[in-house]
Amino acid sequence: MSRTAIRGGLVVTASDEIHADVLIEDGRVAALAATGTPAAEAFTAERVMDASGKYVIPGGVDGHTHMEMPFGGTYAADTFETGTRAAAWGGTTTIVDFAIQSVGHSLRSGLDAWHAKAEGNCAIDYAFHMIVSDVNQKTLKEMDLLVEEGVTSFKQFMAYPGVFYSDDGQILRAMQRAAENGGLIMMHAENGIAIDVLVEQALARGETDPRFHGEVRKALLEAEATHRAIRLAQVAGAPLYVVHVSATEAVAELTRARDEGLPVFGETCPQYLFLSTDNLAEPDFEGAKYVCSTPLRPREHQAALWRGLRTNDLQVVSTDHCPFCFSGQKELGRGDFSKIPNGMPGVENRMDLLHQAVVDGHISRRRWIEIACATPARMFGLYPKKGTIAPGADADIVVYDPDAEQVISAETHHMNVDYSAYEGRRITGRVETVLSRGEPVVTEREYTGRKGHGVYTPRATCQYLN
Amino acid sequence: MSRTAIRGGLVVTASDEIHADVLIEDGRVAALAATGTPAAEAFTAERVMDASGKYVIPGGVDGHTHMEMPFGGTYAADTFETGTRAAAWGGTTTIVDFAIQSVGHSLRSGLDAWHAKAEGNCAIDYAFHMIVSDVNQKTLKEMDLLVEEGVTSFKQFMAYPGVFYSDDGQILRAMQRAAENGGLIMMHAENGIAIDVLVEQALARGETDPRFHGEVRKALLEAEATHRAIRLAQVAGAPLYVVHVSATEAVAELTRARDEGLPVFGETCPQYLFLSTDNLAEPDFEGAKYVCSTPLRPREHQAALWRGLRTNDLQVVSTDHCPFCFSGQKELGRGDFSKIPNGMPGVENRMDLLHQAVVDGHISRRRWIEIACATPARMFGLYPKKGTIAPGADADIVVYDPDAEQVISAETHHMNVDYSAYEGRRITGRVETVLSRGEPVVTEREYTGRKGHGVYTPRATCQYLN
Amino acid sequence: MSRTAIRGGLVVTASDEIHADVLIEDGRVAALAATGTPAAEAFTAERVMDASGKYVIPGGVDGHTHMEMPFGGTYAADTFETGTRAAAWGGTTTIVDFAIQSVGHSLRSGLDAWHAKAEGNCAIDYAFHMIVSDVNQKTLKEMDLLVEEGVTSFKQFMAYPGVFYSDDGQILRAMQRAAENGGLIMMHAENGIAIDVLVEQALARGETDPRFHGEVRKALLEAEATHRAIRLAQVAGAPLYVVHVSATEAVAELTRARDEGLPVFGETCPQYLFLSTDNLAEPDFEGAKYVCSTPLRPREHQAALWRGLRTNDLQVVSTDHCPFCFSGQKELGRGDFSKIPNGMPGVENRMDLLHQAVVDGHISRRRWIEIACATPARMFGLYPKKGTIAPGADADIVVYDPDAEQVISAETHHMNVDYSAYEGRRITGRVETVLSRGEPVVTEREYTGRKGHGVYTPRATCQYLN
Amino acid sequence: MSRTAIRGGLVVTASDEIHADVLIEDGRVAALAATGTPAAEAFTAERVMDASGKYVIPGGVDGHTHMEMPFGGTYAADTFETGTRAAAWGGTTTIVDFAIQSVGHSLRSGLDAWHAKAEGNCAIDYAFHMIVSDVNQKTLKEMDLLVEEGVTSFKQFMAYPGVFYSDDGQILRAMQRAAENGGLIMMHAENGIAIDVLVEQALARGETDPRFHGEVRKALLEAEATHRAIRLAQVAGAPLYVVHVSATEAVAELTRARDEGLPVFGETCPQYLFLSTDNLAEPDFEGAKYVCSTPLRPREHQAALWRGLRTNDLQVVSTDHCPFCFSGQKELGRGDFSKIPNGMPGVENRMDLLHQAVVDGHISRRRWIEIACATPARMFGLYPKKGTIAPGADADIVVYDPDAEQVISAETHHMNVDYSAYEGRRITGRVETVLSRGEPVVTEREYTGRKGHGVYTPRATCQYLN
Repeated sequence: MSRTAIRGGLVVTASDEIHADVLIEDGRVAALAATGTPAAEAFTAERVMDASGKYVIPGGVDGHTHMEMPFGGTYAADTFETGTRAAAWGGTTTIVDFAIQSVGHSLRSGLDAWHAKAEGNCAIDYAFHMIVSDVNQKTLKEMDLLVEEGVTSFKQFMAYPGVFYSDDGQILRAMQRAAENGGLIMMHAENGIAIDVLVEQALARGETDPRFHGEVRKALLEAEATHRAIRLAQVAGAPLYVVHVSATEAVAELTRARDEGLPVFGETCPQYLFLSTDNLAEPDFEGAKYVCSTPLRPREHQAALWRGLRTNDLQVVSTDHCPFCFSGQKELGRGDFSKIPNGMPGVENRMDLLHQAVVDGHISRRRWIEIACATPARMFGLYPKKGTIAPGADADIVVYDPDAEQVISAETHHMNVDYSAYEGRRITGRVETVLSRGEPVVTEREYTGRKGHGVYTPRATCQYLN
Repeated sequence: MSRTAIRGGLVVTASDEIHADVLIEDGRVAALAATGTPAAEAFTAERVMDASGKYVIPGGVDGHTHMEMPFGGTYAADTFETGTRAAAWGGTTTIVDFAIQSVGHSLRSGLDAWHAKAEGNCAIDYAFHMIVSDVNQKTLKEMDLLVEEGVTSFKQFMAYPGVFYSDDGQILRAMQRAAENGGLIMMHAENGIAIDVLVEQALARGETDPRFHGEVRKALLEAEATHRAIRLAQVAGAPLYVVHVSATEAVAELTRARDEGLPVFGETCPQYLFLSTDNLAEPDFEGAKYVCSTPLRPREHQAALWRGLRTNDLQVVSTDHCPFCFSGQKELGRGDFSKIPNGMPGVENRMDLLHQAVVDGHISRRRWIEIACATPARMFGLYPKKGTIAPGADADIVVYDPDAEQVISAETHHMNVDYSAYEGRRITGRVETVLSRGEPVVTEREYTGRKGHGVYTPRATCQYLN
Repeated sequence: MSRTAIRGGLVVTASDEIHADVLIEDGRVAALAATGTPAAEAFTAERVMDASGKYVIPGGVDGHTHMEMPFGGTYAADTFETGTRAAAWGGTTTIVDFAIQSVGHSLRSGLDAWHAKAEGNCAIDYAFHMIVSDVNQKTLKEMDLLVEEGVTSFKQFMAYPGVFYSDDGQILRAMQRAAENGGLIMMHAENGIAIDVLVEQALARGETDPRFHGEVRKALLEAEATHRAIRLAQVAGAPLYVVHVSATEAVAELTRARDEGLPVFGETCPQYLFLSTDNLAEPDFEGAKYVCSTPLRPREHQAALWRGLRTNDLQVVSTDHCPFCFSGQKELGRGDFSKIPNGMPGVENRMDLLHQAVVDGHISRRRWIEIACATPARMFGLYPKKGTIAPGADADIVVYDPDAEQVISAETHHMNVDYSAYEGRRITGRVETVLSRGEPVVTEREYTGRKGHGVYTPRATCQYLN
Repeated sequence: MSRTAIRGGLVVTASDEIHADVLIEDGRVAALAATGTPAAEAFTAERVMDASGKYVIPGGVDGHTHMEMPFGGTYAADTFETGTRAAAWGGTTTIVDFAIQSVGHSLRSGLDAWHAKAEGNCAIDYAFHMIVSDVNQKTLKEMDLLVEEGVTSFKQFMAYPGVFYSDDGQILRAMQRAAENGGLIMMHAENGIAIDVLVEQALARGETDPRFHGEVRKALLEAEATHRAIRLAQVAGAPLYVVHVSATEAVAELTRARDEGLPVFGETCPQYLFLSTDNLAEPDFEGAKYVCSTPLRPREHQAALWRGLRTNDLQVVSTDHCPFCFSGQKELGRGDFSKIPNGMPGVENRMDLLHQAVVDGHISRRRWIEIACATPARMFGLYPKKGTIAPGADADIVVYDPDAEQVISAETHHMNVDYSAYEGRRITGRVETVLSRGEPVVTEREYTGRKGHGVYTPRATCQYLN
């Protein structure tokens, strides 16, 4: 038996903040004891880490990543190897990535392909959602099987006609199925049919710069689709999880639905909380770095997102990590913003940016852990293995220095992408050490992990119902 | 050093459900260890309790009781001795009772009087809120002193003109003071000025039965006052806690305020969740047993309360325990409902009734603990001593049998009152053993506590801000 | 010059109720004079009608009829001849019917076809909206031309995929065009894509009776489409007119939009105000008589419609007259509700049913005229020729007996359909005499009109913007 | 018999815009005839006015004036003589002024006093509302009598404690009485109890300038009181008319109530539509000119008021004319904003400012007449004598030149006050001629009226119920 003790830190979970020593046995949390008590003194361990003055927090659970994702003729630049390594550097110990069904193919073949990409390559544990691009009787049946084997959430798109797009009938059918088999429908909520009209018109007017990406993908069309998805879910009697919520108006729709008592959930991402259309308007095509969908919004929208995170109208912060290099990839869209690959890097930055939000007073320390670790774990059926520090849980633990200062930069980050969306931003707080199932992946800011340590983690159905 | 181990139970807190052994050293939780691990085996203790098949939960925190309260020429029938003993029987290990300032007297003298009543008499720990009946420059200054010494919340009444009533100017001033000194204003939100008109008119029409108590204290007038208190708090820049919310329309006002991002909180009570105007209409003056203010509402209101509890527009369930015997006390209002002492017994029933709500599917197990233990502890500055089971916390712990069946009855309850509001109700779940700071107060359904064990517990300011 | 005087009645318009004599010269209202004054005495006319004890009201404007409309392999049973004659009998003197563009054909050819059906056949004046089934660059240009020649409103369908259905991009494009050319988009707001899934599933379950028509076309899916149309119009910067609103939830969406200041309008129909799903559930396939889309709703929805009509969140009551005989037509759907031709007769009953609403206290007398005459005239650019009694207006005038009693019945009605949706309903109030441009079409309950009297009336753009 | 004809103008009423000649017989409108028709040619009259190119509109009805009102130790500077003359100059032909009950006195004595002030002094017709300062059993009975004799509306104040203030019980009782006798409760909705606390605190901080008047009378406290009045009215089953609505948040409360179907009405005033806190902040105590209650709001609030006027969540624009000279009166508040007499001049400017709103596109021409003439007449039981041009109505008619340009100035206005709140503002549109019951009061911009022409006009109960 291997034993590790982490002593003297402030253990922060979604509900507690305690001065406690943590004892790990064989990769799982075996015990917590109040620091300095005889019970804590009694802990014996081969490896003892001193966390005095540090936070001891659950490893982050990033419920929304796209490693090696094909998009617009290219691929997201992080492989499962580089992306999970970067995640670990950023204090994230679990990712849930999206396997993709292509139109005309089975869910199974898409899932198999993603397993093949990930297996043996990950530094941290991983699981899969399934993107359903082609709802039909056969794929509806496949959904049942996937739920049984641990792929318990299914993403649909109201945008990207001709690629990932599902019409309202396909959405309704998938929701009905999910209502029966316990799956959770995740929705990319933008009215892509209307947006494509606006894209065409903008390009026809010569509006080709990246900032027009933000103008055509209107907040109202995000809100509209959000509302539509909510009502379809209500008709189907299914819960709903809306991904990457960015607009005040969309938050308002989620809020309204929750006020009505509907089991509707919303995720936002750091880019919507910290960046804005000001970034999209950066000159010399630099705005392309910030092209993602839903798009960045004017700065005023941030207040609604923080409010939603505080009062639980938004429950989760994920990254939607989908990095494309500026050079050679983002540049595909010079002269036509609609050809810029949609996506941004961020898997490494989430825990730090949200700690900065604690420092800035947007959220409490416990809420930081809740939205970044505990709730995504529960939402996606990974609890209590992941998302908390409690006896019996996987020892996915981060020792976090709340006082260290750092400056985010592409020069120092570990994601496989040639820019940072947060270049030059000063952050208070820094990951020091990261354990994955008790194994040190990052040790006092040295990478001590390895490809293949991370394993596939089947998931239960959604454990979060209010 | 005294050591107790509770082994083999399912430890349920606001955020976690774990199979763990709990080690108590000298009255505090020293450690938790995953049941069956070497870490757990290493626990040594003089006293070992077997909790297999049971829940191990934090002792309840009842944030709203009125022991020995004078009202309408009589006194609430439970003393601190009888009331805290009954609380312990019901799995509650902390109460926050209301000291009362009389008009024309200081806060201090009111507080001293309540200390005198409680000291040396309690079976479990207790703290005080302060009812402010007379806002003036002197009492505003006293508020600062009370906050410093651990009385950090102040109740005002928009009802009961001539007794506890504060006008909007007094409320605004108290809220402004609280905004400065960190105190929390708790509000009885009913438009008592308008209600008293309706009372007078009802009596003049000969409508004297208990059920008219429910008709004159209209839901709209609760909602109105709730809204008014919210806006006054917004003007003052202060948080607000609304006590005993009972009406759909009042929940709607709280919901609206929270949607706007205001730090506004709401408490409801088991009587509003489980009883209704049907009870008030019981014949032979039996309805008087259910007279409390805010009043019971028609059954349809319950759904809004459950919804609010699920989505956190309501945060706390307290009892507003204020028992008056039917015989001799409630009977004061025969022939005039307005003379019925307002209040109901309940301190013993809260944890059980809310467990029944878990069984019935209204709330999750974790939410049960959150609304009954963790959030009241945080709301009233008792965390992390109270409200959770975590290393360092007071060992206020209940071993709860989730499968036991019981029938609530005045014949078997321990409150000093001659009726039960829930007479004959079948409940699944039952308190087996209760520890207060490690001392067994109830041991396998035997009372093993003692008067004077419970101590006064000064409180920090509100730790719950969203 | 021909002169008619109508003496002694109470002239009721959208804003005034006056005891006045009306003088008609050559088909137009020349003057009104207070009854009994020298000015009134000075009126000289060949024909004098005594309206003492009667109302003198503007002829009704029915903004939504479907004469001879092809649907589901059959045709609406009223021709322009029979339908406009029945309209006149019911006190309506103008209809705006829907010309239909077929997919793949031009707007022009559709409009020409409808002109051909109507010309020379109508008893009263008529105009056309245009149903746009196929938005493309060519038809968008045609819209401009039609606006110029007096077809200033365009209906699109979010239901009936494969027939009239437009997708959100087509809707957005048409709205943008309307925003430029002054046209008004009228929307059939139901999520037909989702509904068709529910239809298929219901039939598969053997739910074939007419009442399932009401169950699958869910109120939530009307509300969803209503909201979607509103947001698309907001993006386009265009006003919006939603036809045949039937659900509480849809009214709520219109209300919300109007609260935001958006130029959004709603029409309801007598069937939604007076009938309900109880009718759809009538046995022996009788429910088929009440199959129309949007469908009849449970009775509780009526209150929201009346509220909307009172506070102007709904502005217009039209009939959506689209009659199919029970025998031979409705019967096409025996065994499959989805094959029942959608539509109900009503053009003859609207003015009477709404007068009954005055009698019942739902609306005021002036509001009756406003929603049935004045606002539809303004909404569709027919004002001040139509919809009011004022000097200069067309003398489309009804002498209405507010005290007469009648019983609605297929045996006595004049529509070319073998049943009445209001069979046996007692109404207080009855049309006595109807003038169209001064010509008596109905004279003291004798038909004195003629085919071909009614002429096509080009329309200005929408004159109603709040 | 005297006869006047007004020929060739565009007659604009709340619902119609027609080219018509108007014939007046003995002070009442006898007939309207389409200009140029034989019917119009047949008009014979001693006096013929040419209104070609002009509007012929109903004289304005100003439902909210305070002539000679005592306030803060001084009197509003306009007598009924000067004030009604100025009103006529501005195109207003009826005012409804407020008689005041003093605390401890009867309604009757207050009403008598106001009759004495007005009788024989007015240039135009007038009526009275009654300010009820002291609700008790005796005054409640007097309300019945006043309704019978034509004083059908009663104003109460939630502000000004110790002067006009009624508590919620008094308000509820008055509303209940009004629900029975048909009276309409008009409410000054500001939480005066809370505001007085803020006033005291502001003055204690040395914040004495006029602009602090705007800061202490917070929008939230107007909204709060508005909501409270609405709920009290709902409990009483009475309609409610809220005077001088100025804040976005208050409009929102009215909107919400109307969305719920409640008979709740709102009035705003030109000062809230055209002025703002920028004016209150004018230097050298000039801001005092704009001190009124509710106070002017930041400019952003205007959009909500215009929206409300467009969609009928606000129904009436009155002036709240209550002029105090800057010199000697407003100056009473130098060094203490709370001593500035509350009120502004405006009775002369309302019709022009609202015509400017037509020119600016805020409202339509018909809506101008509706909110300034027709609705106030209906709301206060003066219809159809006042507020429209229709056979039988009083010939209160204004010939208005829509193209004339004018500049508002104290140098040229006719109100008895030494400043204009709109000094230097350019207006398109101007009153040319004004008839009161057929008598020319202003004739082509010459004053031809006389003191004593105007007579007291008893009123029916509210004719406007949605």
